[in-house]
This record gives sequence, structure tokens and C-alpha cells, in this order.
Amino acid sequence: MKVQVIPKKEKWIAVEQGNICTPKGFSAGGLHCGIKRKRKDLGWIYSEVPATAAAVYTTNQFQAPPLKVSKESINTNGALQGVIVNSGNANSCTGKLGLQNAYKMREIFAEKACLKENDVAVISTGVIGEQLPINKIVAGVESISTLVNDAISFEEAILTTDTFTKHICLQLETENKVYTIAGAAKGSGMVHPKMATMLGFVTTDINIHHDILQKALKEVTEETFNMITVDGDTSTNDMVLVLANGMAGNKQWTQDDDEYALFKEGLHIVCQSLSQQIARDGEGATKLIEVQVNGAETVHDAQVIAKTIVGSSLVKTAVFGQDPNWGRIVSALGYSGITINTEKIKLKIGPVLIVEDGMPVSFCEEEAKSYLKNEKIEITVDLHAGNEIATAWGCDLSYDYVRINASYRT
Amino acid sequence: MKVQVIPKKEKWIAVEQGNICTPKGFSAGGLHCGIKRKRKDLGWIYSEVPATAAAVYTTNQFQAPPLKVSKESINTNGALQGVIVNSGNANSCTGKLGLQNAYKMREIFAEKACLKENDVAVISTGVIGEQLPINKIVAGVESISTLVNDAISFEEAILTTDTFTKHICLQLETENKVYTIAGAAKGSGMVHPKMATMLGFVTTDINIHHDILQKALKEVTEETFNMITVDGDTSTNDMVLVLANGMAGNKQWTQDDDEYALFKEGLHIVCQSLSQQIARDGEGATKLIEVQVNGAETVHDAQVIAKTIVGSSLVKTAVFGQDPNWGRIVSALGYSGITINTEKIKLKIGPVLIVEDGMPVSFCEEEAKSYLKNEKIEITVDLHAGNEIATAWGCDLSYDYVRINASYRT
Repeated sequence: MKVQVIPKKEKWIAVEQGNICTPKGFSAGGLHCGIKRKRKDLGWIYSEVPATAAAVYTTNQFQAPPLKVSKESINTNGALQGVIVNSGNANSCTGKLGLQNAYKMREIFAEKACLKENDVAVISTGVIGEQLPINKIVAGVESISTLVNDAISFEEAILTTDTFTKHICLQLETENKVYTIAGAAKGSGMVHPKMATMLGFVTTDINIHHDILQKALKEVTEETFNMITVDGDTSTNDMVLVLANGMAGNKQWTQDDDEYALFKEGLHIVCQSLSQQIARDGEGATKLIEVQVNGAETVHDAQVIAKTIVGSSLVKTAVFGQDPNWGRIVSALGYSGITINTEKIKLKIGPVLIVEDGMPVSFCEEEAKSYLKNEKIEITVDLHAGNEIATAWGCDLSYDYVRINASYRT
Repeated sequence: MKVQVIPKKEKWIAVEQGNICTPKGFSAGGLHCGIKRKRKDLGWIYSEVPATAAAVYTTNQFQAPPLKVSKESINTNGALQGVIVNSGNANSCTGKLGLQNAYKMREIFAEKACLKENDVAVISTGVIGEQLPINKIVAGVESISTLVNDAISFEEAILTTDTFTKHICLQLETENKVYTIAGAAKGSGMVHPKMATMLGFVTTDINIHHDILQKALKEVTEETFNMITVDGDTSTNDMVLVLANGMAGNKQWTQDDDEYALFKEGLHIVCQSLSQQIARDGEGATKLIEVQVNGAETVHDAQVIAKTIVGSSLVKTAVFGQDPNWGRIVSALGYSGITINTEKIKLKIGPVLIVEDGMPVSFCEEEAKSYLKNEKIEITVDLHAGNEIATAWGCDLSYDYVRINASYRT
């Protein structure tokens, strides 16, 4: 693998062909074990040494059994050395047998990789309400080799209705060290036949204390994974996991200081990139929509408004139809629940100023329509109420979204 | 007009061919004044005597100028004698000129109908951000005769993308009186080219005090108009208006007592029927979805959960596809924000039991699919957490929703 690092001090650089195996000491792979008809459906990540682990989970109250098992592993001593993931079956709403199967999956992968069970996380995504075909998974795990370095197969094995794999890798070079953070993800598309899951996996060789790793992940998630919406539904299996194995060799970062800020910056770029890739690959999506809200009194206000606009079915269909239908954006602004001064609102679609001081300005309809032909659509709102900002990402709503989600589960 | 009243004491009876002109002393009409290309776009309601008026308005912070004018009228002395409505232009985001035009519309209708300006409400629905063609409205109002009794033309004149008119009429016969409550409405479809409005108009000849009229409307709206969702967007012009002119001749009802309960029951039936008609006529809708939540700890909990399920894009597309995809319903239950005991949930799609004690039961897929061929789909959830219930209404999400809302504004 060709790794391009532009040696520039203290700056995260994208590694074009990097992936979750690029940070030192990580391997990964994926294979087909028979849950899906043809495509890969079993993936794993392995670290040579135990890695400090942090995770955020779905807020859906129906949390799937594998989530319980993974939480148990992570909470034992804040570390993981392996992750086993299947797609095609979410092992959700599966009761006691589902929980037994999740434990079984952990047990067999731990055995295969010579790890303690508590050092393994288990993740499932796919059909809800059906029991895991555990025998197929057992057979699949049998053929895993943790020496394999095949991140692309891992990226493929976690997909459901996604149309492309999602990954990013960053490096930062200091005087005597190279640090790497990388990520893979699958989108929140809804698998045939039932709901699926948004999953994110981040590996890094940075040596960092568990507490501030969890803090960074929580803060970054608020601004990235929690700012995307495809259809407003939150699945039962959503999870983002960070593994930091310390093999870059730095003295452990333990403080909320400059090094923390540097780490958080890298993690932010990774998570933001994965979030955008997920939004761009929303079911039936033809465009990525980015809504930036400026001039809010609080970050929370800006976040709520940005998510309300990007989540509006009417805004989404207008973008699909390449229609500069600003009335719908204004309407979403008005019903977000956040108090605004309607007479101070400024709105731009791309470079085109549409509303100023709450009133439509005369704009060139052709220029706006032409802008909406792009693949990435930026909507900017200024509230003139303060200095806080937020950005949210989503996708348009197309015929294909309806087609994909209305289809029979045959 | 043939009015069928089955004389049964103290019970509201539907009057099949009744409408908002059936209550004593009300007239109404509609005509084409040229805002739309061909269809009727100007409607009015007139009462022989001033009617006690109550109203509820959109919670969208961008409230259109006509709403301000109507509020001013109603707040003057809690009474109205006339209502003038145009469709095709919402007079919203139109600033000072928009407000002037709304006043002008009130002034000319008041003059034509020989009313005080403060006894007239003004309502607009249609395109946002364009100024009213006030000259066309002035010319249209010129040709209005308040002697006309043509509720059907009124129902037509208020429509935007609705595919059918919406109305209901109830009567109640007591020993020596006949009371009538009737309603008309237009749906929350989104007009070509921009957002439209949910509007409801209720007329009654009951003599009732303003305070309890407003109280009844507010309470009933919570359980009816506020429990429907087509696409989760709330327009800038939404409004429900009740006019009670007292011409039934009863001694004024002033108390929260038996008579109030009787009135509220009638108003509830009227508003629920209009709400269901609006949901059924959601853009592109092929089915009405009714979600009932039982066994909640509070009414609020039940309402939030019912609306979350009926508003889920994934549930809506599954119903469109006639797919008994219960996982999506369970998922919506889990992310509504209301705390539930996931192990106690019971779920039925029509007569088919799907989930009990939070676990899927084996059910006949064919029976469920066959049920989903119906035009009205009932989903019932039992939380087993208390005794409160709520019902919400919505519609499925079809290709036509995308087609209607993605189309260019040409």
C-alpha cells in the first residue's frame, strides 16, 4: 500500500489509499459466510495489543443483544483487541436466544483469535426480528485468519443497502512520530427486508487515556454522526467504536490539552468524512445536502435548525427536483422549535442570496436552478442572533427511496 | 337540500348532505377571480348575525400577514360575521405590502357585506413569497353576493393540491331544539409551486360563550388536527376557525358542564372527520393510516408515540408497498423519546398480532399482506404502562409524493 505523507508539522494529512489497517498493529478482513446470498457478510478487526476503546450507541430503546454484549466487553476494562461484525441479520428483537447467540459469536471469535472474551466486541446489522444463523457464523469464524490485512473486504462485509464502501485515513507527522487515524462505516440505508444500522469503526495507533478518548468521541459524534439524517429513523443497532492501540509509541495522552485538541481535530475530520459519505449514500440519494446555520445564540439552536431543514421531506424533494423552492426552507426554519427573529433571517442556496432580513430578494431563478444541478448542495442560513454555528448533512428524497423501501420482503 | 335527522335524544347524527351552510343563518360561496389559472380561488362565509369566534393558529414562527389581521379581528370582541379566503397565494413572507394587502382584503369584503372590518377574518393559502394580486381579489369580491348558499363552491375555492373537497355536518335534536355543527377543510398538501396550508372552518348555530368555545376548540384540536401528519412540515398559514352564531336559539352555554361536554363531543366528531379526510388526501396518498396507542402512562406519551409511528418515512413506505414490515414500527416506538418497557410491548397490524411482550410472534405473513391491501390501515400498540390512549392519522408515502413535490415551479 502506497502511503503518501506530506511532511508538514502538526497537520493532519489525508492518506489517499489508507484504511483501518494503516494505523500500526491493526489487521482486518471480511468474507462470505452465508447470511446474505452472495455478498460478504462477516468482518473483523484485530489489534496486536489491547486497544483503549470508546463507543457511542443508538438512543433507540430497543437495543439489540450484540450491543449489550459489546457494552459489557468495553465496560470490563475500557479495552478491546478484536471486533466481529456480521451483516444481513441485526440480531434485534430476538430475546434470550438472541443474547445467547451474541455471546456465542463473541466466544468463538475470541477463541479463534486467542483473545479474552471481554476483549471482543460483537456487532450485527441487517434484518430485525429473525434469529442469527449462528452455525453459519461459527463456520465463517473458523476460516478467519487475523494475519490478513484486507480492510477493503471488511468495508464490504459490513454493508447492507449501501452502494459504495466508506473509508478515510489521516496521518500527522511530528518531529519523531507518525500518528494515524482511520475509519470505515456503513450507512443508515434500510436493508431488504427490514431496518439496518449506521455503524462507524475508527482505528488509531495513538496512545491515549480511555477517559479522554471517550470524551473526544462523544464531542465529535455530536457534531458529525449526530448531524446526519437520511429519513429521521434511528435504528436499534447504531454504534460508533474507536480503538486506540498506542503503537505509535507516544507517551500516553491523558489531559484535555494541546495534544487532546490535535487528536480531537483528527477524529473530527475522520468522523465528518464518514458522516458525509453515509449521507451521500442515503437510500435513493442523488445529492448530498449540507445545511450550515450561522449566527445562532447557542450551538444547540444551530444544530436543531440545521437538522430540521436537512430533514424536511419538502426540502429534500425540492433538491431532488432541482427546484430553488426557498419557501420550504423558510417554513422549516419557522417550525424547528427554536425561537428566531423572522425579520433578521438571511438565506443562501449555494452562492445565490434568496432571503435577506426575512424577506425574499429578487434573484436569478436560472442561476439557482443551475446551482442545484450540482452533486453537493449547500444551504446557508444566518440568524443574526449570536455567534454560534452548526452544520448538518442529509440527502435528497427520490423515487428510488420509495422504491427501495416499499418493496416486498420477498 | 335534504337533511336527514334521526330523532334520537342527545346524540349527534351525521347529516349526509349537510355542510357549513346547514347551521341556521350561515351562507357561503366561492368563485374564480384569476389567482389560479382556472379553478375557483376566492371563497367566503357569512353569518346573518355576529358569531362568537374561536381560532387556533400555526405554531410556525413565520406567520403570514392575513393571520395577523384575522387575530386582530377576533381579538377585538371575540366575534366574526364574515370570512374571506383566497387560494393560490399564501400572502406569506410578503412584508409590509403583504400586511397592507391583507387589510385591504378585509376592508373590501367588509364593505361589500356591510360589516365592520373587525367582524371579518382574512385567510390566504398557496404560493409563499409572492405578493397577492390584490386587484384580482378586489374585482372578485365585487361580484360576491352574501345571499348565495353554495357551500360546495366554498369547499372548492379553498383547495390547493387537494384531490377532493372535505366536509361534514352533524345535528343533535333535543326536546325543543335542533343544533347543527358543520365543517369544511383543505389539506396540508404542498401546492405547486410552494407550501400550502391546513385550514379548517367550523360553523354552528349553538349559542355558546367565547371562553368555553375557545377552550373546546383548543382541547379538540390537540386530539384531532394536531394528531395528523402528512410529511411533518408545518406551514406558515395553518388555522382552524369556529363561528358560533347562536341562531339555534338556546340560552347561552357558559359553563364547563353537561352541555359543554355535548358540544365538545360534536366538535370532536367534526374535527376528527376533517382531520381524517385531510390525512387521507395527503399528497400522493393511497391509504389512510391510523395508529392507536393504548396503555400509556400519560396522554402526552401516547400522542408522541402515535405521531412518531405515523410520521416515520419507513412505516409510510412499507404501508405503500403493502409490506407488514413490523420492525420499522418497533423501531419508531423505540426512538420516539418516550420511555417504554420494551419487554411489554404488544403490536397489531389490523387484526394480526405481530409482537407480544416485546418479541415477534409467529404470524401468517399472507394474512398481514392481505390486510394491507385495505384503504384504511390500523396499527395498534399497547405499552402496558397505564390507561391513557391516543390516536394519530397519516398517509402512506408513494412515488406520487416525490413526483408532486420534486416538480419544477414552471
